[in-house]
Amino acid sequence: MKNVFFSILALVAAFPAQAQLQPKKMTPESSEVWSPEPRLVTPGAASAAVSGFTPPSDAIVLFDGRNLDEWESVQGGAAGWNVADNAIITAPGKGGIQTKRDFGDFQLHIEWRSPAEVKGNSQGRGNSGVFMQGLYELQVLDSYNNRTYSNGQAGSIYKQTMPLVNAAKKPGEWQTYDVAYTAPRFNKDGMMLIPPYITVFHNGVLIQNHTAIQGHTDYIGRPTVKPHGRGPLMLQDHGNTTGFRNVWIREL
Amino acid sequence: MKNVFFSILALVAAFPAQAQLQPKKMTPESSEVWSPEPRLVTPGAASAAVSGFTPPSDAIVLFDGRNLDEWESVQGGAAGWNVADNAIITAPGKGGIQTKRDFGDFQLHIEWRSPAEVKGNSQGRGNSGVFMQGLYELQVLDSYNNRTYSNGQAGSIYKQTMPLVNAAKKPGEWQTYDVAYTAPRFNKDGMMLIPPYITVFHNGVLIQNHTAIQGHTDYIGRPTVKPHGRGPLMLQDHGNTTGFRNVWIREL
Amino acid sequence: MKNVFFSILALVAAFPAQAQLQPKKMTPESSEVWSPEPRLVTPGAASAAVSGFTPPSDAIVLFDGRNLDEWESVQGGAAGWNVADNAIITAPGKGGIQTKRDFGDFQLHIEWRSPAEVKGNSQGRGNSGVFMQGLYELQVLDSYNNRTYSNGQAGSIYKQTMPLVNAAKKPGEWQTYDVAYTAPRFNKDGMMLIPPYITVFHNGVLIQNHTAIQGHTDYIGRPTVKPHGRGPLMLQDHGNTTGFRNVWIREL
Amino acid sequence: MKNVFFSILALVAAFPAQAQLQPKKMTPESSEVWSPEPRLVTPGAASAAVSGFTPPSDAIVLFDGRNLDEWESVQGGAAGWNVADNAIITAPGKGGIQTKRDFGDFQLHIEWRSPAEVKGNSQGRGNSGVFMQGLYELQVLDSYNNRTYSNGQAGSIYKQTMPLVNAAKKPGEWQTYDVAYTAPRFNKDGMMLIPPYITVFHNGVLIQNHTAIQGHTDYIGRPTVKPHGRGPLMLQDHGNTTGFRNVWIREL
Repeated sequence: MKNVFFSILALVAAFPAQAQLQPKKMTPESSEVWSPEPRLVTPGAASAAVSGFTPPSDAIVLFDGRNLDEWESVQGGAAGWNVADNAIITAPGKGGIQTKRDFGDFQLHIEWRSPAEVKGNSQGRGNSGVFMQGLYELQVLDSYNNRTYSNGQAGSIYKQTMPLVNAAKKPGEWQTYDVAYTAPRFNKDGMMLIPPYITVFHNGVLIQNHTAIQGHTDYIGRPTVKPHGRGPLMLQDHGNTTGFRNVWIREL
Repeated sequence: MKNVFFSILALVAAFPAQAQLQPKKMTPESSEVWSPEPRLVTPGAASAAVSGFTPPSDAIVLFDGRNLDEWESVQGGAAGWNVADNAIITAPGKGGIQTKRDFGDFQLHIEWRSPAEVKGNSQGRGNSGVFMQGLYELQVLDSYNNRTYSNGQAGSIYKQTMPLVNAAKKPGEWQTYDVAYTAPRFNKDGMMLIPPYITVFHNGVLIQNHTAIQGHTDYIGRPTVKPHGRGPLMLQDHGNTTGFRNVWIREL
Repeated sequence: MKNVFFSILALVAAFPAQAQLQPKKMTPESSEVWSPEPRLVTPGAASAAVSGFTPPSDAIVLFDGRNLDEWESVQGGAAGWNVADNAIITAPGKGGIQTKRDFGDFQLHIEWRSPAEVKGNSQGRGNSGVFMQGLYELQVLDSYNNRTYSNGQAGSIYKQTMPLVNAAKKPGEWQTYDVAYTAPRFNKDGMMLIPPYITVFHNGVLIQNHTAIQGHTDYIGRPTVKPHGRGPLMLQDHGNTTGFRNVWIREL
Repeated sequence: MKNVFFSILALVAAFPAQAQLQPKKMTPESSEVWSPEPRLVTPGAASAAVSGFTPPSDAIVLFDGRNLDEWESVQGGAAGWNVADNAIITAPGKGGIQTKRDFGDFQLHIEWRSPAEVKGNSQGRGNSGVFMQGLYELQVLDSYNNRTYSNGQAGSIYKQTMPLVNAAKKPGEWQTYDVAYTAPRFNKDGMMLIPPYITVFHNGVLIQNHTAIQGHTDYIGRPTVKPHGRGPLMLQDHGNTTGFRNVWIREL
């Protein structure tokens, strides 16, 4: 890093007094920043059919309605969930599935649907979850007329931070999560120097705004922390037949 | 604040050692948080017609396609812009318009359209702006095949922070901004103790992620800071006939 | 807010194109910001005697070595702790003490000393706590050669976030916490829209860096959230005779 | 990353419903986090002689009063500044000096002294600067009874963010900066996905609290952004004979 870039910078930095003594005439262009030039992305189109936007040009499509090629079983081997009606359907008892790809910082769009026929209540009703980097759970639950603990309802960072509001749709209707996520940064000691931060829109409604995630999702006790690198997107098998579709990620 | 609430809390806080000596049996319910219960919001529906979501149940609709009842001229008096094709159209030379209502922290949805016929270039093409609290500009510009300075293109916090990518649509097409915004907090000295933070999706693509805004938007020089309370949403007249529609805000 | 200030701003904002067409000559002074002028504070002096800095001119001194005039019992009535050797000493069994004043955003300096004679271990050794706004605990513990759970040792946000390192001094030695704290902001629904953030130096070593606090400190289960306004600084009685001295706060 | 760790986690994550059906008895220990164990650091001692704390055990001492072994000229070659009275003294005209080592995230302690004899005014008086990673300037200036622009006085992020208060000491007196700094994170496009954040205590007084830095320090115009990795600590030659001493860094 002791290179020409720094040398030039230092020269500029060391002698601004000269500029101050001999004021340089400036045009308004002097306050413009031209570099870098933001990369072009062709956005998707808003569509009732997909409950949101179709994937933009730089998205990695993780499920387009056809197959589980991008997924595998969390327990190893092929993803044992089902594909029907252009959706991924949980196969209760088969365990979670996760993407073959690993991710760091990303924007995520995912749609999900709780079973139309209501069975059970509280955590037993339409329970699943979307795990950022395989570790941090954004709760999926049928939270329509279904009171449970606030930090366990749909849109909560499970057992951590409740959503700002409950924007749930009815069971059987497609719902969306639009997520901005930055991964944690660990130091050499394994400490989380910068936690993961997450912003979530649920069905177009802001429910998490730059929420600091405390650690990975545990059912009991406090969130714990383990250093990690990139990780997959994981969908939880919690015993209910939840559907997922139109899953895509943009790496930030 | 020296009330029963604190007294009870203090009692609990002062003697946890006892619980430690005589471990209380816990069920997993001990780690649930039930209060407050997130308020119910009926979300809108994704729709191609509105390039995004229709307003959720708790939104304040600032323009529904019909009239400027929610708006006034920044220079005083009635809003002198036009309504046509269910859109608000800039009336160049009439100056900006702003909402009669003032806002603090909010989620904003707004759609805009640059003139279909391309005239001019750089900052001269489809230029307008959406000002949070009347002060902090999210730039509106026809940035389709129209190179300008990066911190001045569509989706920039004008003359401050460039967008992460350029997700512009073609001139004449409706585009969306979905915004999460928290207002600055000033101290008694008039210092910005907590700056405004803004997250923006442009046509469904994340372009600003928890960006700290430095001060209000100035054309020349550095951003400056003045303490303020709630403020209106303001739309800029920059001499181009930009259209706006489907404008709604949810107070956070 | 629809005042002259906004009107002037809007005029400037509406017609910058003119400046662009007729570039104004600028000097480097154009990028200077002169207002507000930071308020003068006479800083304290670094001193071995106080294990840090003496109070700056705008500090509210909460304990200067002499009496408990600024304090009261959490359970009501006068603060029943002792003053000896220019220090506040916990009176085990009397419950916590708290300041009569309430605070919002602040900088805090506080010094504390665990008993020189080591008794007990883990959480039983030199246990106390400093509660921001009476609710959020920065743990005080004799953490010198005293392993306990990481999120319960000195410098942890108790049962939430462990310190980055263990910078503990020996029992019987004075130790310092220098804290930058911003209070949470709640919305009308009672939701924590902006959490408390805390930065802590322990004996001059950074141990918490902009840590988001999740809720108030509970011994069991997850942190819970209740809306509140300003609150006192609270010191915990956990059954050990911890000393405190040189306590001052600067309101931010 | 598709390893045993994730597999175990996924098993736990997939079947928590069982625990819910058969509540496991928990002790308060269930909410303790034991790993990682914070690394031990022996803190320094508060001392009038060093205007703050002596270096903790894990500090990299960049200047201990004797020589410039840790430094080099920004323009290449040996650092041409002087050492006198156990301090580094600017050699006006020789250009800046920077550390041979590069840093990412860090805590910094540095002491500085403006010339006892006052000459000049505003930016001409005791002007120097401390550059994080060689790029982001924390301003050094004699700001005692010396009005200049607020975002250019001592403790400002130069030409960006003014200090919360003016905690300057008199010319000729030693002053301290205690800094917590996290480096920016850039993405593949060269965009600053996470900006640098800086917290600064000036003579023990909080003057910057988690301030987002906008780009590197430019004398004219807006801050610009260029992706970079680790970088040195740099001291500016601005034509005044500023002294520096007791310089140490802890890598976070």
